[in-house]
Amino acid sequence: MSKVAVLGAGSWGTALSIVLADKGHEVQLWTHRAEQAEVINTTHKNEKYLEIMIPEKIKAYSDMKEAVTDVSAIVLVVPTKAIREVCSQLDRILTESPLLIHASKGIEPRTLKRVSQMIDEEMERYAYEDIVVLSGPSHAEEVAKRHPTTVTVASVNENHALSAQDLFFNDSFRVYTSNDMIGVELGGALKNIIALGAGISDGLGYGDNAKAALITRGLAEITRLGTSLGANPLSFLGLSGVGDLIVTCTSVHSRNWRAGNLLGKGKNLDEILEQMGMVVEGVRTAEAAYHFAKEEGVEMPITSGIYQVLYENIHPRDVVEQLMNRNKREETDDLASLLRNKYTR
Amino acid sequence: MSKVAVLGAGSWGTALSIVLADKGHEVQLWTHRAEQAEVINTTHKNEKYLEIMIPEKIKAYSDMKEAVTDVSAIVLVVPTKAIREVCSQLDRILTESPLLIHASKGIEPRTLKRVSQMIDEEMERYAYEDIVVLSGPSHAEEVAKRHPTTVTVASVNENHALSAQDLFFNDSFRVYTSNDMIGVELGGALKNIIALGAGISDGLGYGDNAKAALITRGLAEITRLGTSLGANPLSFLGLSGVGDLIVTCTSVHSRNWRAGNLLGKGKNLDEILEQMGMVVEGVRTAEAAYHFAKEEGVEMPITSGIYQVLYENIHPRDVVEQLMNRNKREETDDLASLLRNKYTR
Repeated sequence: MSKVAVLGAGSWGTALSIVLADKGHEVQLWTHRAEQAEVINTTHKNEKYLEIMIPEKIKAYSDMKEAVTDVSAIVLVVPTKAIREVCSQLDRILTESPLLIHASKGIEPRTLKRVSQMIDEEMERYAYEDIVVLSGPSHAEEVAKRHPTTVTVASVNENHALSAQDLFFNDSFRVYTSNDMIGVELGGALKNIIALGAGISDGLGYGDNAKAALITRGLAEITRLGTSLGANPLSFLGLSGVGDLIVTCTSVHSRNWRAGNLLGKGKNLDEILEQMGMVVEGVRTAEAAYHFAKEEGVEMPITSGIYQVLYENIHPRDVVEQLMNRNKREETDDLASLLRNKYTR
Repeated sequence: MSKVAVLGAGSWGTALSIVLADKGHEVQLWTHRAEQAEVINTTHKNEKYLEIMIPEKIKAYSDMKEAVTDVSAIVLVVPTKAIREVCSQLDRILTESPLLIHASKGIEPRTLKRVSQMIDEEMERYAYEDIVVLSGPSHAEEVAKRHPTTVTVASVNENHALSAQDLFFNDSFRVYTSNDMIGVELGGALKNIIALGAGISDGLGYGDNAKAALITRGLAEITRLGTSLGANPLSFLGLSGVGDLIVTCTSVHSRNWRAGNLLGKGKNLDEILEQMGMVVEGVRTAEAAYHFAKEEGVEMPITSGIYQVLYENIHPRDVVEQLMNRNKREETDDLASLLRNKYTR
């Protein structure tokens, strides 16, 4: 067992710290708020995020240098928009290169860059190939309660993926490996677009049939986009793809689903963002994906429809009508050709 | 527009009749119960199954010969266990060969035969190639309320699939075509095994993470079995596969989910079947799939676990523990090799 640093003490960072502590590691949990570190160390609670006692093996720090001292691995769990700043700070502090794993789901607006690409750009100490991503269907609250959970860790460097698997794997947290960094990262990010759509459908008062259609056809279209960005289409059929999509689209806890739900009920985007008072990742991802798909000629009818609702004031009901009345077609056309290209090239 | 016969006046048969009537067809709806036909024709309701008014274009019959007179298409929507009997009766009655579409989701225990294979064996008038299957994520109640719904129609004969698409396609009922009869039929049947598993997980009090893992890994294993039975693996990623799986596993209305839920809460199979008082298709399908997988050497750890719960009195919690602690592995191994075989052969 070893020392592991977890950077980011939100609900997911805290839950992953608990997994690591259960595995016997000493966990050094970093937060940029000194007050939060103090509370965690004295009360062993992090109540704003998780209603569960935090094992004593987890020590909180607000000094990043202290938190990463002597660790064999660093787990990065900060919001996507803080990745560049935290990484450049981390790069200046580190004197060695422990295993680096990130568990942030998101994508950079406009550039459409993945988290590992941002890390690579900000850190001299790590090559892109050395970074590991951890993703999958995982509500933090359930992980903290030791409910059975499965995730995927991916890295270009197979040995690093295997090390990350060993680091976390325990009785209630099952870890699969993959070499498709791109696919695993994009699955976690792009699924938020479809979650918005699922929320819109529910907000309009449609039922399970409509939502299942949206998830299934949405999965096909984010797979198309992901593949054009270099992903292995099969990753979208795994835990970080369809698995995470199911959790996000069928849970009322999902922020993206909730935002979509309010859109479906007729609120406009500004009202919703103000009311929710926090970042809704899918809104930014939908915009990025829409523009990219247009430039690259990738067909994404659901994403286009959501973009119209978000930014062009088209009524959701009109978008659904438009989607239902597209040309009649064969079902597996597009996915089949993606996979055929992959295996016959 | 034309006359269409629908055989079977349960909730799904009635809902499909409404879709056809909305499209302008005259619908002749057959039930073996004269009393039910009488009630439908006089009250325009079928209250045991659907709480909605039935359009006057739908006329009910208890005489099968009358119901199929002069029709251009027959839609077969009887329970799987009644398929052979109804088909052999129908074969004796028919004097022509209208388009034949079935919408029954199930599989014959022991033989593991699909519905189209049973139809083929019972009817001289139709070749296997001529039969069409209709399947997808579709609660009947929602279809009857004209909520947006998508389904797939599949046939070896492409023209027949296209005719079936034209027959049903309307503003709220979108129909895709496929040539993978085997995959579309097996998706609808095998998903019931995974729905049992999802119910068990919920009954044990596990959360969304566990259920998403079960659905994702379950999808991979029914895809493996389906492919070994001749299906195109891609069909399992479509509406009749993952789409239907999502609806069935996340809806408390699903009979299979409910049976699984009671198993998870500690009841045994006999009690549950007695309490529910109706056929739970997934119980029979799990048994058939388990034996087939064993004979053919197809790896199905979730199905095996469910079989142990159903027939060997193993506690569900022990099965979950066993599933969580299998050897560490790569995620896409199995699906990748299925698809690679398909495209490089």
